[in-house]
Amino acid sequence: MKEIINCAAYSQGRRIADVKLDHVHETLRETNQFVWIGLHEPSEEILTRVQKEFGLHDLAVEDAHTAHQRSKVEMYGNSVFIVIRTAQINLERHIDFGETHFFVGANFIVTVRHGSSVSYADVRLRCENSPVLLGKGQGFALYAVMDFIVDKYFPVVHELEQSLEKLEDKIFNEKPSRETTEQIYQLKRELLEVKRAISPLVDICNRLMRFDIGCISEETRPYFRDVYDNVVRINEIMDNTRELLNTALEANFSLISISQNDVSKKFAGWAAIIAIPTMVAGFYGMNFRFMPEVEWEYGFYAVIVLTIVACSLLYYFFRKSGWL
Amino acid sequence: MKEIINCAAYSQGRRIADVKLDHVHETLRETNQFVWIGLHEPSEEILTRVQKEFGLHDLAVEDAHTAHQRSKVEMYGNSVFIVIRTAQINLERHIDFGETHFFVGANFIVTVRHGSSVSYADVRLRCENSPVLLGKGQGFALYAVMDFIVDKYFPVVHELEQSLEKLEDKIFNEKPSRETTEQIYQLKRELLEVKRAISPLVDICNRLMRFDIGCISEETRPYFRDVYDNVVRINEIMDNTRELLNTALEANFSLISISQNDVSKKFAGWAAIIAIPTMVAGFYGMNFRFMPEVEWEYGFYAVIVLTIVACSLLYYFFRKSGWL
Amino acid sequence: MKEIINCAAYSQGRRIADVKLDHVHETLRETNQFVWIGLHEPSEEILTRVQKEFGLHDLAVEDAHTAHQRSKVEMYGNSVFIVIRTAQINLERHIDFGETHFFVGANFIVTVRHGSSVSYADVRLRCENSPVLLGKGQGFALYAVMDFIVDKYFPVVHELEQSLEKLEDKIFNEKPSRETTEQIYQLKRELLEVKRAISPLVDICNRLMRFDIGCISEETRPYFRDVYDNVVRINEIMDNTRELLNTALEANFSLISISQNDVSKKFAGWAAIIAIPTMVAGFYGMNFRFMPEVEWEYGFYAVIVLTIVACSLLYYFFRKSGWL
Amino acid sequence: MKEIINCAAYSQGRRIADVKLDHVHETLRETNQFVWIGLHEPSEEILTRVQKEFGLHDLAVEDAHTAHQRSKVEMYGNSVFIVIRTAQINLERHIDFGETHFFVGANFIVTVRHGSSVSYADVRLRCENSPVLLGKGQGFALYAVMDFIVDKYFPVVHELEQSLEKLEDKIFNEKPSRETTEQIYQLKRELLEVKRAISPLVDICNRLMRFDIGCISEETRPYFRDVYDNVVRINEIMDNTRELLNTALEANFSLISISQNDVSKKFAGWAAIIAIPTMVAGFYGMNFRFMPEVEWEYGFYAVIVLTIVACSLLYYFFRKSGWL
Amino acid sequence: MKEIINCAAYSQGRRIADVKLDHVHETLRETNQFVWIGLHEPSEEILTRVQKEFGLHDLAVEDAHTAHQRSKVEMYGNSVFIVIRTAQINLERHIDFGETHFFVGANFIVTVRHGSSVSYADVRLRCENSPVLLGKGQGFALYAVMDFIVDKYFPVVHELEQSLEKLEDKIFNEKPSRETTEQIYQLKRELLEVKRAISPLVDICNRLMRFDIGCISEETRPYFRDVYDNVVRINEIMDNTRELLNTALEANFSLISISQNDVSKKFAGWAAIIAIPTMVAGFYGMNFRFMPEVEWEYGFYAVIVLTIVACSLLYYFFRKSGWL
Repeated sequence: MKEIINCAAYSQGRRIADVKLDHVHETLRETNQFVWIGLHEPSEEILTRVQKEFGLHDLAVEDAHTAHQRSKVEMYGNSVFIVIRTAQINLERHIDFGETHFFVGANFIVTVRHGSSVSYADVRLRCENSPVLLGKGQGFALYAVMDFIVDKYFPVVHELEQSLEKLEDKIFNEKPSRETTEQIYQLKRELLEVKRAISPLVDICNRLMRFDIGCISEETRPYFRDVYDNVVRINEIMDNTRELLNTALEANFSLISISQNDVSKKFAGWAAIIAIPTMVAGFYGMNFRFMPEVEWEYGFYAVIVLTIVACSLLYYFFRKSGWL
Repeated sequence: MKEIINCAAYSQGRRIADVKLDHVHETLRETNQFVWIGLHEPSEEILTRVQKEFGLHDLAVEDAHTAHQRSKVEMYGNSVFIVIRTAQINLERHIDFGETHFFVGANFIVTVRHGSSVSYADVRLRCENSPVLLGKGQGFALYAVMDFIVDKYFPVVHELEQSLEKLEDKIFNEKPSRETTEQIYQLKRELLEVKRAISPLVDICNRLMRFDIGCISEETRPYFRDVYDNVVRINEIMDNTRELLNTALEANFSLISISQNDVSKKFAGWAAIIAIPTMVAGFYGMNFRFMPEVEWEYGFYAVIVLTIVACSLLYYFFRKSGWL
Repeated sequence: MKEIINCAAYSQGRRIADVKLDHVHETLRETNQFVWIGLHEPSEEILTRVQKEFGLHDLAVEDAHTAHQRSKVEMYGNSVFIVIRTAQINLERHIDFGETHFFVGANFIVTVRHGSSVSYADVRLRCENSPVLLGKGQGFALYAVMDFIVDKYFPVVHELEQSLEKLEDKIFNEKPSRETTEQIYQLKRELLEVKRAISPLVDICNRLMRFDIGCISEETRPYFRDVYDNVVRINEIMDNTRELLNTALEANFSLISISQNDVSKKFAGWAAIIAIPTMVAGFYGMNFRFMPEVEWEYGFYAVIVLTIVACSLLYYFFRKSGWL
Repeated sequence: MKEIINCAAYSQGRRIADVKLDHVHETLRETNQFVWIGLHEPSEEILTRVQKEFGLHDLAVEDAHTAHQRSKVEMYGNSVFIVIRTAQINLERHIDFGETHFFVGANFIVTVRHGSSVSYADVRLRCENSPVLLGKGQGFALYAVMDFIVDKYFPVVHELEQSLEKLEDKIFNEKPSRETTEQIYQLKRELLEVKRAISPLVDICNRLMRFDIGCISEETRPYFRDVYDNVVRINEIMDNTRELLNTALEANFSLISISQNDVSKKFAGWAAIIAIPTMVAGFYGMNFRFMPEVEWEYGFYAVIVLTIVACSLLYYFFRKSGWL
Repeated sequence: MKEIINCAAYSQGRRIADVKLDHVHETLRETNQFVWIGLHEPSEEILTRVQKEFGLHDLAVEDAHTAHQRSKVEMYGNSVFIVIRTAQINLERHIDFGETHFFVGANFIVTVRHGSSVSYADVRLRCENSPVLLGKGQGFALYAVMDFIVDKYFPVVHELEQSLEKLEDKIFNEKPSRETTEQIYQLKRELLEVKRAISPLVDICNRLMRFDIGCISEETRPYFRDVYDNVVRINEIMDNTRELLNTALEANFSLISISQNDVSKKFAGWAAIIAIPTMVAGFYGMNFRFMPEVEWEYGFYAVIVLTIVACSLLYYFFRKSGWL
């Protein structure tokens, strides 16, 4: 996969030219234009060239090179450096995490994708199709990509909710098992990981829509409020799911105990039933010289029949009182 | 059901005319008047016409079209866009969630109902019956509808409280069962859902009664404090109920264990009682040549009687010491 | 019980005259005077007259008519409306909740009692006995009643603490029982209810001692700090009690399990002891032709004695190792 | 014990004279001097005299008379009233709580000790030995006593930590017992009590080091930061200990269950072993005419030996698989 | 080990001279220079000399002498005193805690190492190799050492995460044991200790990057933001790990109960199987004169075979229904 996905200049919301990375500084001299560059896991060399063209801060470029950052927004003079963790459901229905870094300046925006994530070429295309909006500047491009990233979280959250529902089914309709308990734990693990990825976004959106950041035009700010709303919603769903999951763990535990109760009661019930023939046999096994009906031809059968009747009555009684 | 429920102009608290949606902009030119429009799940076309008439922001209209928003308040220049999640008890005593969106501007208010919710025609009627209050402007109309929505939450909360009380009854007076545990879990689920719907209203009311919003006249602000009080009360009741529910889950668990204890003790007690005849029979079953009373005619009966007496004594003793 | 308990004018801390409700507005015209009215569950008619005399806000009067409000303080222009939930221990040692509403203005204070609560006639008397303090104005009268209300919470809290101590006794010194678990739950319920009544008072006192409220003279503010201290203390005790109660519930649970352990061990121990005679009897019950001592006259007795000795040894051994 | 422990005037950090309480106001007239009075559970009469000499506020003096206050700091005009709860380990290694009240004004400091606490005579002596520091004024005297009080908390906290460690030992190395569970509960109780005493100090120190309090010279403020650090450290240790204690309670509970598991497995294992001889004896006890080896002289012994061998094999097998 | 590790003067990022401690004040007179001193557990004498040379505050020097401080930052006039707790993994894979104190002034930085920690000589070397950065002044030296300290926390956190993963393996794949429970507890203990060491750093970095501290040049502030990011990340990982650990403890508990269930079910199943031969033998042990097949030569063997068949059928049935 190539490192430089896209590098184009925009004026009044329209793509006017594809630019070579080394000629970007010439384009930047024009007013009413901005450059939008899309990189994918760029080499150090490319990043250094980008840094030189846009005059980026050392620390930001260093950060952009290493993945596994925390989502954050940092201001360096007139430009902003933003890190956002991405998440999406892959084909095996697992969650893939990635990272996208943004450099936004007075007349440029650079996006740097790390890890598994969908290309932003579609977002760019959609932006180019509504030049009025893209005409609001690179701030709108930033919004478009962030919105796309946050939208990708919804299926992730939905997947987690569905996993919880499947677990509920197992907990309340199946026998308690080691697997269910382990799955609850693993779901909690995933939940915490997603939560850790999404929660700093609340603060980031807040700063983008509140603070006076030169390179983001004022008319694009309501758009970040839109992203903010989505982030807060995702956060709330995550918190709810987490609390439900904790309750599910406890409910699961209660049901394990109830199931233990059932085993004990069943065992006790059957033990009581079996005690009858044991006792009868024991008594008729005693070596007394005179015992009733011992000499009778059908004594043995009579005793067996009586025993079975007694057992059946006890069984019926236990059944009714809920012990069996 | 029609989409435009109502569309009228008000002056000094009195309904002066029904207006056609397309002529609204003419009415808006008059001073000392405001237009109150009630929509129900409007089509995109209607919304676009409303947007054009009142000059609403794209993002707000887009939001108004899609349900399943989070309750929120957003300011766009001079107008305010408010989303409020509604909840009510339906005939099957379940909770139905809906959503109402408000656009409030200098001389208009538009309400957009989504999902299941009661019509606001009654609220409008009540407002029209007290022209002094409605004369305070569209801010009062907003208050009236919000107050109506929040009031609808009280039966919901009451239903949840009653469900908890029924569960308490089951927990403390009936045998522990899988159903009770599942019901606790389901109640928690409902509680979290209602809580998620109502809790953002605290912040919304706060902003409506504190901030200086042009389209809401200052004399209507104390009214939003009234809504705020109700919302805070509902929130407090929900939090209490949640904490009680958590405690109920734990208490339920304790009682399951106590019930297990009871089973074990009962079983142990009966096992001890049955051990007596087993032992006696065993001993008299031994093949010694000389055993006491074996030759005696009533030996068998004497042993049985003695065994029963011993068992009864043990039974009495266990009963007294709480093992049976 | 009459609705108007008291209605008097005060000047420089001294009661100068009893006033008729309808003549209050004349008294209010005098400077350096304030009127103190005490109402008890007043009818709508009385409230309307009070409203007219003092020029109170509609919403406040509406609130004053309905009980079951949340404790709160609201400012309406120059006057303040305060709702405070009261609690006290009744003769059956249960907690009764009530509510008192206050209207405080430039030269008047109206108290409205709802639900079960002690009359404030005593407080008024005590105030009249220290004219220097009451000379600070209606703010001091407000303080005096609020202090009285908060003081009534201490026995309530004390009662809850004692209930917890009694429960501790039961948990650690008696056998685990369904009753104890239910009592823990019920105590939690009461605790949450009291907590809900008292906790908004922290914020109310804070506002009364911090904010610049015209109708409360500055020299009375330190007195509200005094009430604030008491409220905070009660809150802290409640939080402690709640956390202890949660721990008690868990400790109770642990003890139920230990008790289950004891049952199991006791049962296992006795089962082992009883296994000895069963086995011996079983072996001597076998139909071999040649068995030791079967022909011996005292064989039967010897076997029984040996069995008892073996059982006793096992009993002694289990006793020592803690299984019995 | 006398009520007035000490009453002296200080100038430039040096004790210049012992003063009689009734002549204090004369001393106060001198500039560059301050009076330091130490009281111990003073009578109302003494307090009234102190109040008159220093012109203290009624509410503060009232508070100073009654113990069982909450730690707090209150400003009355130019003077400050501070309440601090003290704690120390007594000879029986229990925790004794006390209370010290401070009145600090422009040129005086009064300390009032309540309940069990060590005398501050030593602190005074140490202060007098470093006149440079004491020369910073009564603010330094306040710091010296507060520092002394907070230092006394460290052994308390240490004692609690050691109690927890002893409990850990019991939990993980001894058999689960009712005593351990009760001790965990009691430790929690003590912890909450100490926490309640120390935690308001964070806020108090914060205010003393941040706010502009006339009677505390600016150069003494860093010293209160020192006390603040200690208080925060104690608080953190308490929070850690509390969280560990909660975990210990749960771990204890897990171990009770594991121990229950062990009992069950042991019981099941031995029951299985004993089932062998029972079954063998049962079969040879049947009254068939033709059974193998019944006529053989050593049949009985052969069966017993075989049974013992079978039991031993089963024992060995259970041992290996962890059931015994 | 010597106490003074290093003492050198820097100008424009280059080491220009090693300085004797007693001549430092001469060096300090030069402009555009700063002195960087590295101490390791210095004696009181050395600290006093350092204090005299740099004019440090008594309280700060006192703190620097005693280890076991809380991480904190304190401003004394123009200089800053910083305490940072260090942590690292030692060769036995345990966590060693240490402490480093910093005095930073207008033209000097003093680092004081306590407890086990790696020497900062490497950091100094690295700084000297990039004179452009070190030219930003002593603020950069402070950053370099802090960054080094925080980086050392990552392996610690990683170790804790791995311990948790090992525990998960044990919990979900091995039999529940006392050891696992104790290890969960011990991991919680370590986690809390590390958390207590790292968490105050959030606030410290915040103050260093926000506040206007004279001795830290403005261009070094973004670097502290870098440290801040790392600290926040570590904190988040710790919080996640803690929550997972709590869940693991509960999951472990659930599995103990499931394992108890399994024991009970297995026991009940086998007891039922063994009940068959016991009953059969009992019945054929009865002393009736007429019993079926008793006279038959192969009766005994037939009964045994039938019994085994019955037992096998029951075994097969239990196996299928999950009781064995």
